[in-house]
Amino acid sequence: MKNDTQHGLLGPAILHDGTAEADPRAFRTCLGQFATGVTVMAAGHDGRPVGLTAGSFSSLSLDPPLILWSIGRSSRSFAVFAQAPSFNVNVLADDQIDISQHFGSSADDKFSGIEWFRGRNGCPVLPGIVALFESEREAVYDGGDHLIIIGRVRRFVRYAGKPLLFVQSRYGVPQTHPRLQASDETLAAAPAPTQSIAALLSSMLEATRLQVGGFDKHRRAEALNYIHTRVLFDLGLKSSQAIADLARRIFAVPADCEDAVAELIERGLVVKDLKGQVSLTEAGRQKNDAVMRRYEHYEEECLSGFSADEIAGVKAFLDAFIRKFKSASPEA
Amino acid sequence: MKNDTQHGLLGPAILHDGTAEADPRAFRTCLGQFATGVTVMAAGHDGRPVGLTAGSFSSLSLDPPLILWSIGRSSRSFAVFAQAPSFNVNVLADDQIDISQHFGSSADDKFSGIEWFRGRNGCPVLPGIVALFESEREAVYDGGDHLIIIGRVRRFVRYAGKPLLFVQSRYGVPQTHPRLQASDETLAAAPAPTQSIAALLSSMLEATRLQVGGFDKHRRAEALNYIHTRVLFDLGLKSSQAIADLARRIFAVPADCEDAVAELIERGLVVKDLKGQVSLTEAGRQKNDAVMRRYEHYEEECLSGFSADEIAGVKAFLDAFIRKFKSASPEA
Repeated sequence: MKNDTQHGLLGPAILHDGTAEADPRAFRTCLGQFATGVTVMAAGHDGRPVGLTAGSFSSLSLDPPLILWSIGRSSRSFAVFAQAPSFNVNVLADDQIDISQHFGSSADDKFSGIEWFRGRNGCPVLPGIVALFESEREAVYDGGDHLIIIGRVRRFVRYAGKPLLFVQSRYGVPQTHPRLQASDETLAAAPAPTQSIAALLSSMLEATRLQVGGFDKHRRAEALNYIHTRVLFDLGLKSSQAIADLARRIFAVPADCEDAVAELIERGLVVKDLKGQVSLTEAGRQKNDAVMRRYEHYEEECLSGFSADEIAGVKAFLDAFIRKFKSASPEA
Repeated sequence: MKNDTQHGLLGPAILHDGTAEADPRAFRTCLGQFATGVTVMAAGHDGRPVGLTAGSFSSLSLDPPLILWSIGRSSRSFAVFAQAPSFNVNVLADDQIDISQHFGSSADDKFSGIEWFRGRNGCPVLPGIVALFESEREAVYDGGDHLIIIGRVRRFVRYAGKPLLFVQSRYGVPQTHPRLQASDETLAAAPAPTQSIAALLSSMLEATRLQVGGFDKHRRAEALNYIHTRVLFDLGLKSSQAIADLARRIFAVPADCEDAVAELIERGLVVKDLKGQVSLTEAGRQKNDAVMRRYEHYEEECLSGFSADEIAGVKAFLDAFIRKFKSASPEA
């Protein structure tokens, strides 16, 4: 056992250490370190369907079969879900970012213009999901600025497919952990390591992980996080946007986008006009340029030492591989 | 809006449709469609540290700052956590599978032999995590066979790094969604698409996703899921194992491993002796061989049309890329 003062020596860099009262935005960012799936909760209200995106879902009990989630007391659908005798949990698939963004917005009639049908309990089901839990309200409990809703699962449906992820303020897709792949049945079947697709894939995963994560330190060097850089970049492309439109364009959750914009306004990089439209300031433009220059340099660094032919060859291999797969197994 | 009978036409294959009462294992499998991070909950008890792995963590409220999780009433640490006035949420990083497995086991003194230190509240903190929430017990609520524990966060720490995932009964690592990469600042900086590392990575992610997911349908054709095939394969390597050892070896959560073994016993593919050691039956050996043959065929299919030189060239490129990264940015 070590004591707290040695902490910095033992693990990775501390990015924030504080209390939620002192810095509520940093608290929200820290909560995002826990990865979640994405659900759309859906209920009927006087015959009208109501739904919202939630990441607070959790399995709770097997016997009886219970699940839980929580809804913000300031949510526009709060009154409906706080009372609804039944509701459906739609667990979104990895190709449903648009559905997540749609149900995370404050649109009025979210079910008009999208495909849906009614489950056996009459509540909405979205096609293309990976799991459905048709639930009856079992109990509600106080949860501070949220209400905890406990559902008893009356029917569940599991579909083929991979789930959508939300982690560290961005959408993601799950990849099987490299350590599992290395110990998988693949190993025994692989004749020679360098010729095996398993070894190739393991290298691909490692390469992508290093490259995607590697730019984070350049963001930090500019005192920016991922969402900050997305906001600056998108405002550089399109000036004067409403925050809701900006969030949609950069695939951000509205609350994350609002936090990032507020922080950038405090730092003089973004301004909001009287109509609520946001734009870059001159300092914001310079900051965005600095990030872009860093990215160009980073990309050059990543590819230095490889010839144009080598790079084109790898790309051609991957594209052929993908084409072959898509034609052979349409459901993959 | 469509009705339920058209459901099959709209989305992917239905793998299970039922009730938890009729098939509790299938219910657990379906709950695994929702991706989660992995936490180790830790508290002190009469000066002795106690901890367990939990995926049921959820953020709850910003003001006041609350989080929640749930603990099984049959857990050996139930009595401690049901009473503990304070506890720590350790959110695990992507290289902490061993820690997850260790705290998911039923070992006696889990904190002996591993590194840890005390947080400001006296509860254990594990080095190398991505987030810490030092919490005070705010409330507990009934949750069927679990107890819901609400914590008020008194201090939080965010560290650099990526979180570990658990999804569809296996550990994973998050990858930024391909659609975000395509709309990232990378795009503007990329000079020519085929020469850009962003385009290359996007192809790598797609290729790995297709290949890893592509074998699932062969498992399904043998009426097996992912954990089933791992159990059969590992028992093929090492006969006569305790289920707890098996779970550790295949990186499975003990409950998932127990379910899979029970199902394989029912199907006559595995037997358990009087000491609780499990082994393959002759039918189990044949089933494992069938999966291996399918995998060999699958691998051949994946690589057909590519020459050995092409494959070796791609592998060499990736390995050089990884080496360069690791030497340039040790913290990546």
